[in-house]
Amino acid sequence: MKNKNIVVIGGGTGTYTVLSGLKTYPITIGAIITMMDSGGSSGKLRDQYGVLPGGDVRQALVALSESDLLWRKLFLYRFTNGDFKGHNFGNLFLAVTETIGGNFQKALDMAQQLLHTKGKVIPVTFDKTNIQAVLEDGKILTGESIIDERVPNRSPINTLTLEKPAKVNPHAVDAIKNADCIVIGPGDVYTSLLPNFMFNELVHEYKKSSAKKVLIANLMNKAGQTDEFGLSRYVSIFSKYLGDNPFTHIVINTGKISEEARNYYMEYGEHEVIDDLTIDEHTVKKVKANLLSDSVFVQIKGDSLERSIVRHDPDKLAKILLELLYGN
Amino acid sequence: MKNKNIVVIGGGTGTYTVLSGLKTYPITIGAIITMMDSGGSSGKLRDQYGVLPGGDVRQALVALSESDLLWRKLFLYRFTNGDFKGHNFGNLFLAVTETIGGNFQKALDMAQQLLHTKGKVIPVTFDKTNIQAVLEDGKILTGESIIDERVPNRSPINTLTLEKPAKVNPHAVDAIKNADCIVIGPGDVYTSLLPNFMFNELVHEYKKSSAKKVLIANLMNKAGQTDEFGLSRYVSIFSKYLGDNPFTHIVINTGKISEEARNYYMEYGEHEVIDDLTIDEHTVKKVKANLLSDSVFVQIKGDSLERSIVRHDPDKLAKILLELLYGN
Repeated sequence: MKNKNIVVIGGGTGTYTVLSGLKTYPITIGAIITMMDSGGSSGKLRDQYGVLPGGDVRQALVALSESDLLWRKLFLYRFTNGDFKGHNFGNLFLAVTETIGGNFQKALDMAQQLLHTKGKVIPVTFDKTNIQAVLEDGKILTGESIIDERVPNRSPINTLTLEKPAKVNPHAVDAIKNADCIVIGPGDVYTSLLPNFMFNELVHEYKKSSAKKVLIANLMNKAGQTDEFGLSRYVSIFSKYLGDNPFTHIVINTGKISEEARNYYMEYGEHEVIDDLTIDEHTVKKVKANLLSDSVFVQIKGDSLERSIVRHDPDKLAKILLELLYGN
Repeated sequence: MKNKNIVVIGGGTGTYTVLSGLKTYPITIGAIITMMDSGGSSGKLRDQYGVLPGGDVRQALVALSESDLLWRKLFLYRFTNGDFKGHNFGNLFLAVTETIGGNFQKALDMAQQLLHTKGKVIPVTFDKTNIQAVLEDGKILTGESIIDERVPNRSPINTLTLEKPAKVNPHAVDAIKNADCIVIGPGDVYTSLLPNFMFNELVHEYKKSSAKKVLIANLMNKAGQTDEFGLSRYVSIFSKYLGDNPFTHIVINTGKISEEARNYYMEYGEHEVIDDLTIDEHTVKKVKANLLSDSVFVQIKGDSLERSIVRHDPDKLAKILLELLYGN
């Protein structure tokens, strides 16, 4: 029997979680990853060496690696003194492979071989561009790191676009074409998920695909992007870019988030995502389960892998996705 | 049947060749590697980050890696501009693993897992020290990179010692204790091979070992270290450090070195090693074969993996060593 084909779309920690859960199963995994990372060490390397940003790709590579814990340590390492101060080893690694390989695709091929990844990481584009958010007050924010800032009382985002037109990576379109199941999220809607849908050809293929289309609902809202949004508002945002009925399944956590964690997020003006979605069971199904991770992680600040203390559990998510992949 | 145990002692390109040939066979490999590398990027990192030099260890890791060609490219990569100018990626990699691991042994364990190495790399010491050469005119040269310089008409080396006393890595002593076959060379006598024998405990174990003790004779002499030495002079140098009859077997190339290559070396004042050794067949055997590599490599200057254009062939060497390992 041919392995079933699952495609995960995103970037950041949420995609890391999904991929690291899925990789232990005998399935074919493709990860379409945003390339609009603009801040920190990636940005510096981009200036000095003209290489593409690798922040999100780096995380996806590590997630799919056989020795993920070791590579994670290595890739997260940031020099604190000397010639390399402020640089992150993971981005440096990708920059070197890119310089050796001659282009980002060859760099990726090398990195995937070196990291023994299970599955393919597919950057959504190889062109250099930034995302741009038009706010409801008309202001325009350019660049992933600016849009990602938690600014209190900032006007909500109205539309996401690209600063400069960019070509989609044809492998990303092919991956969608061949998918049995497409997974979106969890992740920040405007900085991790939607940047992948700024390409007409890819959106077209997504719409016409008969694959299962699964949204993994976020656990917590994100200040500045989806403040106090209910699940219905998430779906309507995606509809704006992906058309009516963008998902066949929505995976929703039923596990109880602790008081302590809620309070922690409250300090950042962030609240739990409430399921206020009324659905037509013929077009979309809710899949409910306790998906919370038992382990609580300390948030590491000032690092691109900054981590929520409320997280999905990789194995619980993977089991649900496998059931969807092989179910009717 | 338990795998036979082969231990290779050295550092540099010669050891790289031996290890990369041996790694395809189902044998247990240990590589005892000099840690006295003092020049270039290793030296800079040593100053800035207090880490141990990794030049020779780095080469041995790559030699034993499953994906050796890719890792070699990566590890040899040297930044030519920007914040990292002059630094070599391989040393940087080891420096980061050392900082993360907390010590060099843990860094090695990590690196071996990440590189999927076949066999163990065993640094001869973890102490920071340099080699010191006392010349026949009484002058003292300190540091591997100084001793390694090709200075015309320099007084010959009389004795090699350590600048500061250092403790041997107990794993190196154990490796010798458990070896079925110990391979020394090919390589620069004073900068790659003998630095490993600056430790009484290790020399003691070597002398008393009943393993086969194999010298792979160098193809070419090295200016400033072994100018116009015949094979007999090599053996007498080793006898000075390892006692009488230091080897049970000496592997000697019979392949003809091209006129072109001879002329190339002549420019550097370097000549072929001539077999002028008369032996007592009861104590040592000559093993003769064409061991030359067919491919001729261009020398890369200004890099620690500077390469001779006359080289041993990894597979031919490995076959000879396997016959010795499993023969009577």
